[in-house]
Amino acid sequence: MAERRPPSPGLPTLDDVRAASQLVYAQAVATPLLRHPALDEAAGCKVTVKAESLQTTGSFKIRGAMNRLANIAEVDRPRGIVAFSSGNHAQGIARAARHFGMPATIVMPADAPQVKCEGVRANGAEIVFYDRDTESREAIAERIARETGAVLVPSFDDPWIMAGQGTAGLEFADQLSRRGETIDHLICCTGGGGLISGMALAFEGVMPETRLWTAEPIGFEDWQRSLEAGQRLANAPGGQSICDAILTPEPGKLPFEIARTRLSGGFAVSDGDVRAAMRFAFRHLKLVVEPGGAVALATVLRGVPEPLAGRHVGVMLTGGNVDAGLFAEVIAGG
Amino acid sequence: MAERRPPSPGLPTLDDVRAASQLVYAQAVATPLLRHPALDEAAGCKVTVKAESLQTTGSFKIRGAMNRLANIAEVDRPRGIVAFSSGNHAQGIARAARHFGMPATIVMPADAPQVKCEGVRANGAEIVFYDRDTESREAIAERIARETGAVLVPSFDDPWIMAGQGTAGLEFADQLSRRGETIDHLICCTGGGGLISGMALAFEGVMPETRLWTAEPIGFEDWQRSLEAGQRLANAPGGQSICDAILTPEPGKLPFEIARTRLSGGFAVSDGDVRAAMRFAFRHLKLVVEPGGAVALATVLRGVPEPLAGRHVGVMLTGGNVDAGLFAEVIAGG
Repeated sequence: MAERRPPSPGLPTLDDVRAASQLVYAQAVATPLLRHPALDEAAGCKVTVKAESLQTTGSFKIRGAMNRLANIAEVDRPRGIVAFSSGNHAQGIARAARHFGMPATIVMPADAPQVKCEGVRANGAEIVFYDRDTESREAIAERIARETGAVLVPSFDDPWIMAGQGTAGLEFADQLSRRGETIDHLICCTGGGGLISGMALAFEGVMPETRLWTAEPIGFEDWQRSLEAGQRLANAPGGQSICDAILTPEPGKLPFEIARTRLSGGFAVSDGDVRAAMRFAFRHLKLVVEPGGAVALATVLRGVPEPLAGRHVGVMLTGGNVDAGLFAEVIAGG
Repeated sequence: MAERRPPSPGLPTLDDVRAASQLVYAQAVATPLLRHPALDEAAGCKVTVKAESLQTTGSFKIRGAMNRLANIAEVDRPRGIVAFSSGNHAQGIARAARHFGMPATIVMPADAPQVKCEGVRANGAEIVFYDRDTESREAIAERIARETGAVLVPSFDDPWIMAGQGTAGLEFADQLSRRGETIDHLICCTGGGGLISGMALAFEGVMPETRLWTAEPIGFEDWQRSLEAGQRLANAPGGQSICDAILTPEPGKLPFEIARTRLSGGFAVSDGDVRAAMRFAFRHLKLVVEPGGAVALATVLRGVPEPLAGRHVGVMLTGGNVDAGLFAEVIAGG
């Protein structure tokens, strides 16, 4: 089977997202839309949550992983894949690799959450740890790819990955349409931008009035600043946050190319806001959400910014892979 | 508006459950069906979870409460309602009372989970605490009803309550049908039996091949023994369990009348099994489930009993109202 090539210059389109929807559900599930009166009261507007935290592997990343691996030619599959990831992409890749019977090696930081390492190993993938401060995960992954012939699968800067994540957008819009509803705004936790760029393609195609916004931890609000500047800007080095899943240095090249004309802007929240959002999800929504997956929720819980007030706002909960120790600490907090 | 009277001798029917479906969704939401590969692997069969833990007020109890209060004649509403409950019925009643603008007083044990007391107060209801060991909650509630003229709303031994809870069954069957699926078995956490008896009416009517089973904590397996004996049997006094929501002394009279010919039997699990199920829900399903709401899940995680092996099994997660301290202790456990 030949690879389905994305159109030149390698940017995915709505058609690629639609094509991905035919492939990802071999492992991914349609995640529910959730509403809760306590959330509407706290936010001061109607909020619909899309709980991708309930996705297979505990995050949306299985969508992109399935689409990418489904588009690797069968002749190339025995050589396997290599990826680098703080843990959610890793689990998605590991699960997809198992699905396609491919060996997988994942380069992960030595301080990755235990639950994410376990999720990778449970799917039979091999982990190579690196030191965040002294080693380059890209260099390690490229060396492995060179030595083994494995296909290197980036976590966001890849048209198939972006199209795969975008299936969450088609699904969200379809679920809304079946309820006879639309959303005015959509806020999405954003790291490299694979998810929000894919969702931007989906919403532009099927629910074009919806405005999309990034949500990031303070100190890692590269998307917010880049969207304002109209060009990719990097974060200052040395930032700290508990949101391990989305601490990328700058917007992905391809995601920014897609998203820069399609997003309305970005929001940034503190780790304290994120902890409060995780507590709210525990207390009221009865959901386990990881720090990086709670950033969009944190944005609306602070009281939505002006353009969103009184409107119907969609909130992506993007992941639930958090260690028991941190979760216990967070829910016990004041 | 006159009350819609249940048919003599006060036992609800499928028609009452259908009628309740027209009333409960003013506050209740349709809760999602969830599937997870890790759950199928652990159980050794295909499992579909109905997550009533994601329901408004954090448990299915809002369904019965809405149906009961909607059927109180408007002329009687100003006198309000009184109920006794360990906490989930209390929150359902408090929310429904707020919906209908009725004052509500709830008699709750002094050791009720904090999260349940907060949920009741957040909806504007008044709490009267009693001592589980030395006082009768029924006597206290009856005295309040006598003194104030309030309508006493039982937590399960009431045809409207049972019909209201049964809407979870119609909804479950409808969601399955839309997927082109059925379930062979349904396991439900059971206290007084309001939920499982209402669901038995629903499934008998719309998915009659499905066999229903109770799940209870060891020491409180009154339903299991009563179904075997063909008559209501009480639990021995002095039992202990963390499953606060379902520690009823014996099957409810009306629920047993409905359920005794419609259920296939019951299962009992230890508190250790329940803790393991809560950890599994945290780790894999990314759901917050309270002890009493995790009993059916615990049953399948031990490896399903013989008649269920290899079949498609539905599992009710009935509630998620658990204090942060207990939840932290449970997820940290081995």
